[in-house]
Amino acid sequence: MISDQKVIGVDVGGTKIAAGLVSAEGKIVSAVRRLTDVSSPEATLDSISRSIFSLTEKLKLDIHELGPIGFGIPGLVDRNSGIGIASVNLGWKNVKVRSGLESRLGVRCVIENDVRAGALGELRFGTAKGYKNFVYLNIGTGISAVVILDGAFYSGVNGIAGEIGHAVIDPGGPLCKCGGQGCFEAIASGPAIAQRAIKKIRNGKSSMLSLDGQGPLNTITPEEIFIAAEQKDGLALEVINEVGGFIAHALEYLVLAYDPQIIVIGGSICLKSKILNRIISQKLQELSDQSWVFAKAYRKGLIRLSTLGNNAGVFGAAALVS
Amino acid sequence: MISDQKVIGVDVGGTKIAAGLVSAEGKIVSAVRRLTDVSSPEATLDSISRSIFSLTEKLKLDIHELGPIGFGIPGLVDRNSGIGIASVNLGWKNVKVRSGLESRLGVRCVIENDVRAGALGELRFGTAKGYKNFVYLNIGTGISAVVILDGAFYSGVNGIAGEIGHAVIDPGGPLCKCGGQGCFEAIASGPAIAQRAIKKIRNGKSSMLSLDGQGPLNTITPEEIFIAAEQKDGLALEVINEVGGFIAHALEYLVLAYDPQIIVIGGSICLKSKILNRIISQKLQELSDQSWVFAKAYRKGLIRLSTLGNNAGVFGAAALVS
Repeated sequence: MISDQKVIGVDVGGTKIAAGLVSAEGKIVSAVRRLTDVSSPEATLDSISRSIFSLTEKLKLDIHELGPIGFGIPGLVDRNSGIGIASVNLGWKNVKVRSGLESRLGVRCVIENDVRAGALGELRFGTAKGYKNFVYLNIGTGISAVVILDGAFYSGVNGIAGEIGHAVIDPGGPLCKCGGQGCFEAIASGPAIAQRAIKKIRNGKSSMLSLDGQGPLNTITPEEIFIAAEQKDGLALEVINEVGGFIAHALEYLVLAYDPQIIVIGGSICLKSKILNRIISQKLQELSDQSWVFAKAYRKGLIRLSTLGNNAGVFGAAALVS
Repeated sequence: MISDQKVIGVDVGGTKIAAGLVSAEGKIVSAVRRLTDVSSPEATLDSISRSIFSLTEKLKLDIHELGPIGFGIPGLVDRNSGIGIASVNLGWKNVKVRSGLESRLGVRCVIENDVRAGALGELRFGTAKGYKNFVYLNIGTGISAVVILDGAFYSGVNGIAGEIGHAVIDPGGPLCKCGGQGCFEAIASGPAIAQRAIKKIRNGKSSMLSLDGQGPLNTITPEEIFIAAEQKDGLALEVINEVGGFIAHALEYLVLAYDPQIIVIGGSICLKSKILNRIISQKLQELSDQSWVFAKAYRKGLIRLSTLGNNAGVFGAAALVS
């Protein structure tokens, strides 16, 4: 455990890799971003290594003078064995990630699932600092929650505890990548929000997002929907209103299940839309005003957005080794 | 802790009190049932005491030769201070239950919320014997879950953890006693199941339950609905099918939240209807067949009915002192 010096944290995504040098006080000294080469596991490990060497060259650092390097990796990760068990985004299965990185870099490496690393990042550097019982809910391309009880991960018997992205919250709703129907992830993840807007446009609803039939509908992004909502586009507001209601219900579930000190929301979705967050807060307040049981656990400040910004993934990876 | 001798457990309900002598091996040696006098807190404490004296007289036992007596009590209970904080069914608020009972009985008393006691009963005498991580879901007049992690109650920061009876699972659904709308309890508790049938009959659906308009509709009980369903009454089957689907979704949620070793279902509802249980099992299997994430935690035998039968409340109370 090196807490009095700087460490490198690497956020490995399916599209981009971000490597950053993080100080013990929680400042990003410097960071680089590189595209992820997913053509093969070996190529991916090469591109991860290159991103780190870019950073050390930029900073004129000798990698061997630093401590171990932390890596947040999407999908199923076995931290102890250093194996990347499965990752849809990286296209790998049972890859010896840690040893592959250690042989390329010549330093000790620690790998962990990126959402778990995100929770540790919040605990070490972010909104959850000082808390021992909290839930970290990541809403991005996928949705999952990480639960910290008494300062340690609570994983359950099969490592599934907190996978509420796959709880059915809208029976008969959209199909989910897991095979389920109406899962939380199939409603409130980035791709799901985009699909909801596209479906409404296909059904003939007018919107500035439809580009008058000129643009390729499938390229609508959640960010564009958020922008359109800010400009009072009716369809975008409808989408955000619906999705916000579902997110509020899922948060209510989490509160009633774990009754935590705080819930931190990370991931790309909620951080990008003030309107979405306002709707979520309003719905939660309504639920609390209605139910005296929920009101016993709910209060302003219980549910918070990550404050780590775009570098949350780097902070999370750094928290693995700091 | 007296484990090598018999103890008295008392299940205090809003209508009836059951006092039983329970052996260390988990047999009910004898039990008595008395009506609960809820005219005042003092009268309630008197009727609780009388039920115990009936039992000891029947068995020709000297109460002082036994160890402490355990009491399962509905509503909010502070076990440590011995206060009954609030109970709608007993109509009391901040009643010194333990000292009131100890002065009447002359022996040490232990009080606990009845659902928590129920979970301990399953752990000591029932289906959860030998498990350290399980959820006890009570579906009766109300709905709540008790969570045991590492062999101890997990209560959360405000004592609300597990109160999923008040999670909204059907937005826009029936009003709940808590003030919420579409809470799990407002859909699947005994009174809620009866209300669902009554509403369908009022809306003109025919059923053997409607008594051809001769009977008072409001007296329909869940038990009658279960009997009608066994006799293939369409409306009763429709009610049970709808309710079973909601219960399955709530169970899925509990599995994804806690990923426990087992979930034990207690309370009066699921134990009374084979059809309801079959529907719940079918829906859970469907959810598991669809979603590979849920399938990682779900398996046959994960969710079980209490095996303690009608005396579950007595076993729970006895578990407090054995």
